[in-house]
Order: sequence, then structure tokens, then C-alpha cells
Amino acid sequence: FVSKLPKTEVSIFSRMSALAQEHEAINLSQGFPNYPTSDKLIALVDHYMRKGCNQYAPMPGILPLREVLAEKMNILYQVDVDVEKEITITSGGTQAIFTAIATLIRPGDEVIVFEPAYDSYRPSVELFGGKVVPVTLKSPQFAIDWKEVGKLISPCTKLIIVNNPTNPSTKIWKKADFEALEKLVWDTPITILSDEVYEHIVYDNQPHWSLLQFPALWARSFVVASFGKLVHTTGWKLGYVAAPAYLTAEFRKVHQFNVFSANTPMQFAIADYIQDKDSYLGLRAFFQEKRDLLVEGLKASRFQSLPCEGTYFLLMDYTPISDLPELAYATQLTTQFKVATVPVSAFYASPCDQSLLRICFAKDKDTLNRALDLLIKI
Amino acid sequence: FVSKLPKTEVSIFSRMSALAQEHEAINLSQGFPNYPTSDKLIALVDHYMRKGCNQYAPMPGILPLREVLAEKMNILYQVDVDVEKEITITSGGTQAIFTAIATLIRPGDEVIVFEPAYDSYRPSVELFGGKVVPVTLKSPQFAIDWKEVGKLISPCTKLIIVNNPTNPSTKIWKKADFEALEKLVWDTPITILSDEVYEHIVYDNQPHWSLLQFPALWARSFVVASFGKLVHTTGWKLGYVAAPAYLTAEFRKVHQFNVFSANTPMQFAIADYIQDKDSYLGLRAFFQEKRDLLVEGLKASRFQSLPCEGTYFLLMDYTPISDLPELAYATQLTTQFKVATVPVSAFYASPCDQSLLRICFAKDKDTLNRALDLLIKI
Ligand SMILES: CSCCC(=O)C(=O)O
Ligand SMILES: CSCCC(=O)C(=O)O
Repeated sequence: FVSKLPKTEVSIFSRMSALAQEHEAINLSQGFPNYPTSDKLIALVDHYMRKGCNQYAPMPGILPLREVLAEKMNILYQVDVDVEKEITITSGGTQAIFTAIATLIRPGDEVIVFEPAYDSYRPSVELFGGKVVPVTLKSPQFAIDWKEVGKLISPCTKLIIVNNPTNPSTKIWKKADFEALEKLVWDTPITILSDEVYEHIVYDNQPHWSLLQFPALWARSFVVASFGKLVHTTGWKLGYVAAPAYLTAEFRKVHQFNVFSANTPMQFAIADYIQDKDSYLGLRAFFQEKRDLLVEGLKASRFQSLPCEGTYFLLMDYTPISDLPELAYATQLTTQFKVATVPVSAFYASPCDQSLLRICFAKDKDTLNRALDLLIKI
Repeated sequence: FVSKLPKTEVSIFSRMSALAQEHEAINLSQGFPNYPTSDKLIALVDHYMRKGCNQYAPMPGILPLREVLAEKMNILYQVDVDVEKEITITSGGTQAIFTAIATLIRPGDEVIVFEPAYDSYRPSVELFGGKVVPVTLKSPQFAIDWKEVGKLISPCTKLIIVNNPTNPSTKIWKKADFEALEKLVWDTPITILSDEVYEHIVYDNQPHWSLLQFPALWARSFVVASFGKLVHTTGWKLGYVAAPAYLTAEFRKVHQFNVFSANTPMQFAIADYIQDKDSYLGLRAFFQEKRDLLVEGLKASRFQSLPCEGTYFLLMDYTPISDLPELAYATQLTTQFKVATVPVSAFYASPCDQSLLRICFAKDKDTLNRALDLLIKI
């Protein structure tokens, strides 16, 4: 039996979460909240289950949810997205990304990926016979040299994957980045996949520029987002994708034979819940408090935190503490000091060790304070 | 933009369900129950959401659910399946099928499919560059000529897809079928995908032979099943796949980058719920009553029902009533006579019109009686 993904292992998130559990460490590795889910939201799921909403949703998702998403996109980004033809509800952001890649990539196609990158992009591309062309960005700036990106474009370039706000670098894309991207692709048939699952988690009153706001780009793009991040329920596995009608039609061809449709009662519950705009407008302040607590607290430690612009992750440089490689140090930190993180090298395909760990702060204050107590002692 | 699936349309199930809604017809097309979900099961989901089980499940699924499945397989089929290495929980049976195909199929591979077949198999194979080699089975016997199947096997044959009980023919595989299959593949590297989502829905005290019961086949197989069919919740999108460790390892590589994991609180709820063996052992009697009601009732109509061995579908021959092609007649039946069904021709890739409609009887008695009243008048 010859594997189609010979280099793929169990994901770093699964491995670090398992290690955390085994060693009873505080799990700040895999990105997920540890505080309770809204009672109101849970009651809504219960309501719709009892009401009998337990069978297949329409393949593109239930209409009320697509409607409230269109309204949200209009409020946040002043765009009009067609609820019938341009929005599809998925079983999570990752499934949306996988399905978009499945829709596009054929053997020999090239896909430009900015690294460090979320770990699903590369194997998903490779599964369809595509080739990842990485743009390697380095700490602490993770700055994109657009001239260099231009040199990587070839007649085989089919797709460019954007992740904004960026996991794990925490960087947000500036308007100038989108303008540079637009200049690069305008006379090519290249498609863009914009992974914006952290769209609501940006700090210090910076804007989140959605790709939806750049008409020339949006006309050739899949824009992916996640309800797990929006309503703090990563285990409900719901997300969505917005794309112009011609791309949505192709996406749905694959989607209907991949998962067919997404969870019905939870779609109804979320549609009601996010009618209240505070459910998403409040996320910035909610996470800013956690970020600031962590950044302040770490000042008393020997870890050096990098500037955090968005996402619920923070990067910490441990150069003053250890010269172990990242995976080895992350392992030591978990097993010995009882704090689980993710080595940033896991987000690069080629070896790249920068003495950086990623820490997830979507946690209640008590957990963050307990973790700080442990980190400060090191 | 050149489509990867140029021949694929919106699935027949979506189209017939939409037509049913538009014309206020009784929807017996797409396969899903219309009676209430167990209160006990809903209360369990509520319980686990309130308990905080709302974040990512472990990628292979929660252990208690895999354990109760292993127990079920042992009770029903007297097999020992390894909970750690051989069972994976998925976002529905369709996602399990898609992911198994994604795990195996490369450009040029051939996949043997018995038609009429569930409509996801072919586009899923084609998406990965594979080629479907159909075995066309005809009404009313839908008998498999194993000599003919043998002739279709080539050095490119990578996979054979088995669906048992079979949607839409309603046929169940006999022990002799498995023995013939075994003889065919024993000295080849061919993998089997056994779609057994209707495993609990077999009539007249016939056995369901699971592929799990044939060790030489199971050693090279993916066996897929569905919680939607087990606990009457097709909209919760949960299923599972059992496969030997070497195939499960490859399956999980794709699964973790497709959906990562499946719905957490519903996994916990179902794990508790199916501890009670009656939840699955009772399904045969539950559906037999509905099947018998429908078959009896149709005797007073001009439709001729075919023998129904398994699944919650029944095939009806309308030759005495109309000589329209199936799609046209199914449309007329929906718009004019207010009963939506599925034309069986939709399950064949090449034109094959046999004046057959598929009717889903996973409905409450009132619905079945109202449909019978309408059908009898025709
Ligand atoms: C799907 S597990 C990974 C969760 C996540 O987004 C992250 O930790 O980066
Ligand atoms: C996923 S929609 C199809 C449901 C079904 O299994 C069928 O109607 O055959």
C-alpha cells in the first residue's frame, strides 16, 4: 500500500493536546476556548432539536443563517453578498478550505502559501496532486516581500492562500498588501483562498481588511470563516465560505458529495444568536483583555512576547531560557513545567527554528493566571 | 474557469426536495425520517453542551463512542475491532465515503461501482482523477453476474464499492456474493469500500452480512456506517468508518485536514444513547411495520411495488400508469399528484429508464397513509 500523503503525520495540535493531557499540563497548544459556551446559545440548540430540526439541512445551508451572514458582511465590510448564490455553510472552516482546494486543484497546479501557515493547507493541496510553493516569512516582522512573491508566480500558479489575521504569526494584512496582491494577479487566472477565521479578533482598534472589500480580488476568491471562533464552539464544526456565484457553484458540487450539508439544529441556533450584533462586535474587547493580561504578565518572565496584532495566539521567544530546538523545548515545557504550547517550526515545511512557541489565550482568566505563574518561575 | 466536475449537477435529492416544497407535495424523495427524535437523546445533547463539551473532539472521535461501536460490532457480527486504531468518527456517512475515496484514488485508477448507486460515489472518484467502471444491474432482480464483474477487473482497478443493503435497489448481499467477491480479489491489491449505512434496516428476519464478517475482505476494506440512520437524525451529520489499522492511519491523514473532527456534544450523547442495545436492535421491527403498511396499501393502487429486502426505500413500477420517462413522471407525480419520489434513472450514469420510482418510507404513519391515499387515486 503506497500512501498518498507519505510525509503527513498526526497534526501537531493533536499531538500537543495529547501530551498536555498525559502530563496534566495546562493546554495552551491547540486553539480552542476553555470557558463556558453561552447558555442562550445552548438553549437555542435545544429548542431547535425539540422543534424537530434534526434532518438534512439544505445543501448550501439554511437560508436564515445565510441571511444573517450577508447582513454581517454588509455591516462590517459594506459589501452585498448574494445569499442564494454566494454563501455556503460548511462543517467548519477547515472543511471549507479543503473543499475549496478540492474544487480547484489538479495535478501539476502550483499553490502559493505564506509560511508559517496553518497545517492543513499543504497536505490538502498535495492530496490533489498540487505543489505548494512556499513564501517563507521570518520572525519578528513576518514581512511579505511582494517582489519576491511576484517571482514565484508561474503559468502553473492556480491559487494563492491568504490567512488574515494570520495563524500563527498573529500579523494582520494591511491595505497595501491587498493592493500588491491585486497588482500581482489582475492579468492572471489565479484564484485566491482567503482564510479569515479570526476576522473578529483584531487588536488595538486596527481594522480587519476583508478580502471582500477588494472587488477585483473578491471576484476571484473564496473567503472562509468559522462559527467556532465566532461563538466559541470549535467542537460544533460549523463554518462558511463566500465566493462569487461561478466559484460557489463549483464549490457546492464538491461540498454536496463531501459532507452534503452541515449540522441542522446548530445552524438554526447560531442564525438566531448572531442576530444580536454584539455577539461578534464584542469579540475584539473580549479577547483584547485576555491578550493584554498575558502580555503584561509575561513581562515578569524570561519569555519575550512578540507583538500580537490578531488571532487568539501569542508568540513567545524563549532564546534567553534555552537553546533547545522548538519541538524539544515545547515538549520540555509541557512535561516538566506543565504548560503546553505549539512550536512555530511546525508551521513551516522546511526546517526553520526561531526559538518561538505559540500560546493560545482563548482561556478563562484563572487558566491564564495559573499559566503565567508557571511561566514566570522558569 | 474549467470545472473539475463538468457533468455534475445539484443532486437529485436536493432537486426533488426543493420541488416537493415548492408544490407542497408529501416529500418521499430524499431519504430522511419525519418523525420526532428521541427526547432522551436530545436531553443528552443538551446535557453535554451544558457540561462544556463544545470544543474540538479528538480527531478520531471520542473514545466512549468508539468503544460502544466496537461493542456493537462484536454483538452483531462477532468481530473484534480495535477502538484505537480501527474506528474513526466522521461528519456523516457521505464524508466517510468521500474521505476513503480521497485516501485511495489517484489519476488513472479504476473503481468498480454497482449501478444503480448512491450518487456521491462517481463524482467523488472523478474528483481525484479516477474512472468509474460501472456494473449495470437491472430491475427487478438487480442480480450480480460475478463472471461479468471478473472481466471488468484490470491492473488499474484500485477499489470496488459495495453498498449493502443497497440504495436504491433495496437488495441485500448474500453470503455467496461475498464469497464471489473474495475469490475475485484475493490475489489482487484491490481495496473494498463497503457502504453499510442501512445495516440495521433489513426485513423478514434476513441476516445483514457485514463485510466485517469476512476476514480476508475486511483486511482490505473500509466499512462505513451512519448515525443519522441509527438514531434518526440525518441532520446531525455523524457517521463512522471501520478499517484495518494501516488503512485507518491513511484515512485519518485525510480526515484531519478535511473536517479535523466531528461534532463533540452529539458524539457524547449518541455514545450514551446507544449503550441501550434496543436503540439499534429495535430498528428492524420499527421499519418493517412501515414497509408492510406501504406495501399493503399500494396493493390497492396501480403501482407495482418491487420486493424490498432492506433500506427504508421501496421501488414502485408505474408501467401500468404512464409511459413518461422516469424524471418526467416523478416531476408530474410531485407537481400534480403531490407525492415526491426519486426517479431510479438518477442512480445510473448511462441512460437507463425502467419506469421505476424510489419512495422513502422513513415517515410517520399519518404521512404514509396520506401518501397512500394520493397514490391509490392515480
Ligand atoms: C483543528 S485543530 C487546530 C486548531 C487551530 O486552529 C490551531 O490551533 O491553529
Ligand atoms: C445526502 S441526501 C441523500 C439521502 C439519501 O441517502 C438518499 O436519499 O438516498
